[in-house]
Amino acid sequence: MFDNVTIVGVGLISGSLALALKEKGLAKNIIGVSRTKESTDKALKLGIIDEALSLEEAVKKSDFIYVAIPVDVTVAVALQIMDLITPQQIVADAGSTKYVLCQALANHPLRKRFVATHPMWGTEYSGPESAVRGAFSGRSCVICEKDKTDKEVAEKIESLYKTLGMNIVYMEAENHDIHAAYVSHISHITSFALANTVLEKEKEEDAIFELAGGGFESTVRLAKSNPSMWAPIFMQNRENVLDVLNEHISQLRKFKSCLEKENYEYLKELMQNANKISRIIK
Amino acid sequence: MFDNVTIVGVGLISGSLALALKEKGLAKNIIGVSRTKESTDKALKLGIIDEALSLEEAVKKSDFIYVAIPVDVTVAVALQIMDLITPQQIVADAGSTKYVLCQALANHPLRKRFVATHPMWGTEYSGPESAVRGAFSGRSCVICEKDKTDKEVAEKIESLYKTLGMNIVYMEAENHDIHAAYVSHISHITSFALANTVLEKEKEEDAIFELAGGGFESTVRLAKSNPSMWAPIFMQNRENVLDVLNEHISQLRKFKSCLEKENYEYLKELMQNANKISRIIK
Repeated sequence: MFDNVTIVGVGLISGSLALALKEKGLAKNIIGVSRTKESTDKALKLGIIDEALSLEEAVKKSDFIYVAIPVDVTVAVALQIMDLITPQQIVADAGSTKYVLCQALANHPLRKRFVATHPMWGTEYSGPESAVRGAFSGRSCVICEKDKTDKEVAEKIESLYKTLGMNIVYMEAENHDIHAAYVSHISHITSFALANTVLEKEKEEDAIFELAGGGFESTVRLAKSNPSMWAPIFMQNRENVLDVLNEHISQLRKFKSCLEKENYEYLKELMQNANKISRIIK
Repeated sequence: MFDNVTIVGVGLISGSLALALKEKGLAKNIIGVSRTKESTDKALKLGIIDEALSLEEAVKKSDFIYVAIPVDVTVAVALQIMDLITPQQIVADAGSTKYVLCQALANHPLRKRFVATHPMWGTEYSGPESAVRGAFSGRSCVICEKDKTDKEVAEKIESLYKTLGMNIVYMEAENHDIHAAYVSHISHITSFALANTVLEKEKEEDAIFELAGGGFESTVRLAKSNPSMWAPIFMQNRENVLDVLNEHISQLRKFKSCLEKENYEYLKELMQNANKISRIIK
């Protein structure tokens, strides 16, 4: 499908994408671009990329450029790339926030060659060594402002994600950011806060090490996520994240009040309501 | 090891234990006791139990009686069983709270035949159909007030759990309940509250269904847990749970304050601190 693909950022998402593109025969040559030689060296060694180039050289050589870096640097780098490409090349990003980026690129003369995407897949790990084979499959991929992209370009990128087993969902950038706050960003904040809650206590007690079981692990695993990736996401989406966080704190206060007042019936009711989440996650 | 074992309550924990005892050759005959015929019928059909009897008949016939029912009924049922047994029989429970039960049994004439245990394993599902093979392995099992149990009895039950692949941890009942609040009970409350947070929003928006990904799933899966099992746990351990819940809300407020004040540095610091949880969960 593509002769040369550049991944900008050589980490979890771009690395997993590179592996998938090769596996599915969608790319012949993968070029890695990173701020650090350490990352591209690792990626070369792991067989994730075929060569490492500077951003300018890589863009010049590529049919498709995929940007997957922390969202606080995405706008500047994406604009730089958009200024380098010809009207035959395609650019897409994988960022967890979409509104700020879409606004920044809105009036670029080659906006139609850009696809704003957010594959809803990830793990708590980062760096090229975190890239996994078979990623993305069975998950949704959001494409924002499809009407601002050339039909043919959008179809090509949709088809790429579909080949990876993803389900395409269309959304305006603003709506994407609201939903992302609910289904992803708040989960990370609760995990980070839960880890801090336990670590605060652990100063006094060591037994927690021995007892941590499956339930604890699954609610707290996202707390291992990379702050350099997640702090910019929370900041860029702060209004939506604050809305959800306020709602979440008020939901926790209901549990607190039940316990304080020993209101067993209302406590059970809150939990029965929460059980309805089975409709969303099987 | 045992000819006849009775499981009181035929659900996730007792069902998984029954399967494991059979698999490891630790029990010849498993007797199920349940308030509902529906449960024992299912358990018979699934091959989890060999026969279903009333509590009195089952206890009479058994070498070992294992109680795994909601903690609000455990004290009454355990006392009833303790009054029925001879000094040759062994009783153990699997409850998520230990202090109230240990207090209730402290002065029973056959206290030495009882082992207070809490295998730190579970899933969000309940009922005999949720029982799984290979459960417990690699997890810790807490044994409380070991000194109040006959040495030989305690060793027998420890050996049983060890054969299942568990690591034994000794603890006073009061300490167990404090730790359980941190490594298990709070995870369930945050999951229940997170589910309610999202369901509150979902009244307005349907897209959440399509977008919910792995991170969301793992932080919210415990919200599917059975309220009849968990409400009594939170109530019986309410002082410890309230302590942790207050700490957790104050940790969440730190994130909130960072976002409100756009304090990027402190936000990153909170997340870097949370990353230390990697020391506890790999």
